[in-house]
Amino acid sequence: MANFSLQDHQFMQRAIELARRGHYTTSPNPRVGCVIVRDNKIVGEGFHQKAGQGHAEVHALAQAGSKAKGATAYVTLEPCSHFGLTPPCAKALINAQVSHVVAAMVDPNPKVSGRGLKLLQAAGISTAFGLLEQDARALNIGFIQLMTQQRPYVRCKLAASLDGKTAMASGESQWITSAEARCDVQRLRAQSCAVICGADSVIIDEAKMNVRWQALGPLKEQYPETDIRQPVRVIIDGKNRITPDLAIFQTPGKILLIRTHIENSQRWPQFVEQVEIEKAKNSDHIDLKLLLEYLAQQGLNDVLIESGAQLAGAFIGQDLVDELILYQAPKLMGAAAKSLVNMPAITQLSAAKNLEITDMRMVGKDIRITAQCSR
Amino acid sequence: MANFSLQDHQFMQRAIELARRGHYTTSPNPRVGCVIVRDNKIVGEGFHQKAGQGHAEVHALAQAGSKAKGATAYVTLEPCSHFGLTPPCAKALINAQVSHVVAAMVDPNPKVSGRGLKLLQAAGISTAFGLLEQDARALNIGFIQLMTQQRPYVRCKLAASLDGKTAMASGESQWITSAEARCDVQRLRAQSCAVICGADSVIIDEAKMNVRWQALGPLKEQYPETDIRQPVRVIIDGKNRITPDLAIFQTPGKILLIRTHIENSQRWPQFVEQVEIEKAKNSDHIDLKLLLEYLAQQGLNDVLIESGAQLAGAFIGQDLVDELILYQAPKLMGAAAKSLVNMPAITQLSAAKNLEITDMRMVGKDIRITAQCSR
Repeated sequence: MANFSLQDHQFMQRAIELARRGHYTTSPNPRVGCVIVRDNKIVGEGFHQKAGQGHAEVHALAQAGSKAKGATAYVTLEPCSHFGLTPPCAKALINAQVSHVVAAMVDPNPKVSGRGLKLLQAAGISTAFGLLEQDARALNIGFIQLMTQQRPYVRCKLAASLDGKTAMASGESQWITSAEARCDVQRLRAQSCAVICGADSVIIDEAKMNVRWQALGPLKEQYPETDIRQPVRVIIDGKNRITPDLAIFQTPGKILLIRTHIENSQRWPQFVEQVEIEKAKNSDHIDLKLLLEYLAQQGLNDVLIESGAQLAGAFIGQDLVDELILYQAPKLMGAAAKSLVNMPAITQLSAAKNLEITDMRMVGKDIRITAQCSR
Repeated sequence: MANFSLQDHQFMQRAIELARRGHYTTSPNPRVGCVIVRDNKIVGEGFHQKAGQGHAEVHALAQAGSKAKGATAYVTLEPCSHFGLTPPCAKALINAQVSHVVAAMVDPNPKVSGRGLKLLQAAGISTAFGLLEQDARALNIGFIQLMTQQRPYVRCKLAASLDGKTAMASGESQWITSAEARCDVQRLRAQSCAVICGADSVIIDEAKMNVRWQALGPLKEQYPETDIRQPVRVIIDGKNRITPDLAIFQTPGKILLIRTHIENSQRWPQFVEQVEIEKAKNSDHIDLKLLLEYLAQQGLNDVLIESGAQLAGAFIGQDLVDELILYQAPKLMGAAAKSLVNMPAITQLSAAKNLEITDMRMVGKDIRITAQCSR
C-alpha cells in the first residue's frame, strides 16, 4: 500500500465530507466525493448528487478547469471505467490530464474492480488507493454489500418502552417515543433505497411509509424539499389483503406490492407494481430471503424494515437483518403489554439472537440503540 | 449567598474528591470530606471512612496540627454540632482556632440544620455555605432523602435482553448480562446500606446477596478487602417460606427477614432478625411502603432492590422506586420469553410509568441505563 502524507489525509477527508452531502439523494448509486488539488491547493470539488446526474469527478473537474492539468485527484471510490447513465469518469480524468489519482477504495463490484485505476495507469497517470478506506466504506455500506454479496444491507427499526413493550394488552397504542425519535426515523427512511412494511401497518395503522420533508427536523436545512427522493415502498401482502383505497396509495411514489400471486381484479395507481414471491417452504408466509434477493436485483441496496412484532421477528429470526435500530421510550408498561419481537421458534436461550452494540445515544428524551446482528 | 473565588472552588472540589473515598464504607453515615487551607496551601485533608471512626474535620485538623490556627476549613457538609458516636466537629474547629469555614451545604436534617455554623459564628469564626452544593448533595443522596423525607433512596436494579426479557418461557435462564455488568452490580451493592430481595431469589436462585470482594473488579484497587462493609440483607418473605438451611444463611452479615408474622419454631443464626410488617390493604402481600418506612427508621438510607419481575413490579407499580438501573444484554429473546417487570394493575397506556433517563453507558458488552422514576 502507498504511503500517504498528512495532506493526502486532509484532502481525502474533504472528499469524504463532500460525498456525505449525497447521503439522502444518490440512492441507489453510491455516495462519492472528489477533490482536485494542485500545488497543495484545492482547485475543484464535487460530489455525486443523484442517479443520472454528473459523477463527483465530473463536477470537480468542471470547477478546476484548466488547473486540473498536472493536478492530483482524490476520490472516495475508484473512478468508473464503464458507460452507465454518464460516460466513464476515468476517461474524464485522463482527458483533463491529471497526473495522479488517489482512491479511498477500489470498486467493490468484483467484475469491474481495479479497471478504472488500470485505465488511468495505461494513460500514464500514477494511482494509489486505500486512504481512509474504512470511512469511504461507511459511506456506502448498502452499495458495497449488494456488489459483494448480492443482497441489500437490511436495517430493522423498532420502538418500544424500556421494558420492550409496544402496546397494551388491549391493543391500545399510540406514539410511545418522542417527536424527536420519529423525526430520526424519517431521516432513516430518507437515506434508504426502500422501506419494507407489512400489510397490517398499511391497513390498521394507515401508514404511508413516505418521507415527509416537514418532519425531517434539522435535516431540512441541508436537504431542500425539491431534492426529496422517496424510498421505494415495499408492502408484504402475502394474503392479498391490500386494497387500492388505502391511505398509502394517496401519496405517489413507487410501491412494490409483494404477494404470493398477482391479482388483476383491482385497479391500482400507475406507481404500484405487484410482485410475485413464493411462500417459504412449509410456511404460509412470503419467503423473505427470496424477497431480499429480488430487491437486490432491483438495485435496492439499503433497505429499512418498519414493521410490527410479527414481521420484524420473522426477519430477525431468519438472520436476515444486518442492523437493529431500537428506540426506547423512558417508560415501563409491564409484562402484560405487547412485546416488540415475536420469534416463536426460539424456545431455548442458546437460540436467542446475539447482537453487538455499535452506537447508543439520546434522541430527545428517548434512547436510540444501534446494534449489529450476526448473519 | 457568599461570593466564592476560583480557589474556593478548587479547594472544595478537593474536599468532594476526598469525601468520595468513603463511598463504599461510610454507610449509614454521610460521605464527608474536609480540606484545611492556610496561605493558599492545603495543610490538612481528611474524609469520613466509617461509622464510629473520626469525622472528616477531625482527620484534617490532626494533619494540619498547629497550622490550623487562622486557616480556612472547606467541608462538604455543615460541621456537626451534636455528640454522636464522636464529639461535635464544630467544637473541634473552634478549638483548633480556624478563622473561616466554608460548607458546601447545610445539614439536611431540619432539626439541626444551621446549628453547626451558628456555633462557629458564636465563637467568632466567619462562615459561608452553598459552594458546589449540587456535587455535595450527590454524595449523599440517600442520607439527604432520609433526613428530609423520612424514607430511603430506593434503587431498583433490573437486567434483561434488548427486548426486555429475563428468561425463556420454559423458565430456562442463566446469566444474561456479561461478567462486567455483574461486577457493576456488586459495586451497586457495596455502596448500598441495604439490599432487598424476594423469597424466590433466596430459595430458587440460592442468592446470597452479599458483596463478594473478588467480584468487585477494578474497584478492588481502591477498596481493600479488610474495608468491606456488607449491606444489610432484607428478604421479603410474606408467606414464611424461608428456612434456615438456605445458602444465604451460610454467609454471616445482618439479615432482616420481613414477614407478616414472626415464627419462632426455627433456629436462626444470630445475625438474622425477623421483622413483622403488615399486609397491604386488600392484598396478600407485605405492605412495601411500611417496609421502607421501617428501613428508614433503622437509618438505612440507600437501598437497592434486586428481585424478579413480581417484586420489582410491585415496588415500581406503587411508585416506591426513585431510580431504575437497567442492564441490557445485546440479545433478542422473543415475545414468548419472560418480561422483566410485572405490573398487572397497569392496563392502560396512561397508567404506564414514566421515567427520565439520567445516564447511559456501556458496561462490557452490555448497556446500563439509569433513569429517575416519578414518585
